[in-house]
Amino acid sequence: MSPDEVVRRFIAAIEAKDIEAATALVAETISYENMPMAPIVGRDAVASTLAMFLEPATDVEWVTLRELVDGDWVMNERLDRFKIGDGWLELPVAGVFEVVDGRITLWRDYFDMGDYQRQMAALTGDA
Amino acid sequence: MSPDEVVRRFIAAIEAKDIEAATALVAETISYENMPMAPIVGRDAVASTLAMFLEPATDVEWVTLRELVDGDWVMNERLDRFKIGDGWLELPVAGVFEVVDGRITLWRDYFDMGDYQRQMAALTGDA
Repeated sequence: MSPDEVVRRFIAAIEAKDIEAATALVAETISYENMPMAPIVGRDAVASTLAMFLEPATDVEWVTLRELVDGDWVMNERLDRFKIGDGWLELPVAGVFEVVDGRITLWRDYFDMGDYQRQMAALTGDA
Repeated sequence: MSPDEVVRRFIAAIEAKDIEAATALVAETISYENMPMAPIVGRDAVASTLAMFLEPATDVEWVTLRELVDGDWVMNERLDRFKIGDGWLELPVAGVFEVVDGRITLWRDYFDMGDYQRQMAALTGDA
């Protein structure tokens, strides 16, 4: 699989909330970085972070709007959508992925955390 | 000039706080989008936004960590640094640029606004 195929399959596994399939595509030593938070390092830590992140959503759609590829590197522009209760949380994200030997070794997402938190609070009534 | 050359010259002009040189590289109809805020549309609006944004900084360094190019599109990963008073504000950013006929027609930056605001408040004593 090419690096962009690995990234697309990884995103499809996340949309299916299939954490086992998603983490099968990441390296043991992956660094997962939600900028500017501290990196989450290792496959197990990524699995538990994804579980926590995906748990409240009954549906997950990560729409890739654009994808650029160069060697081991993939950058994409996405709209990450999470159905929470009756509404959708929609987060604009730019992602950076390094893929080595068919496994994601680095995953870095850029987004506005306040936007995520405000939408989550509105959808869960914690506003 | 290729699209990536245009983007690099644009960033160099911003680092020099040369708003005239920077906006000479953008299309009249540019859409400048600091996600998830409302788009800033048109060369003049970009010029005044850049002026406001760059004014408090005595030094500006936008370090490009990675750059991917595909046709008219450039995506980069940057550390945008602004010297404010005695300290540096350092903002991790992912940027997306569309360049048509040597002019930037779309510029979209992904970053955490709260990170920017907290650093600015700490550096200006407004914390």
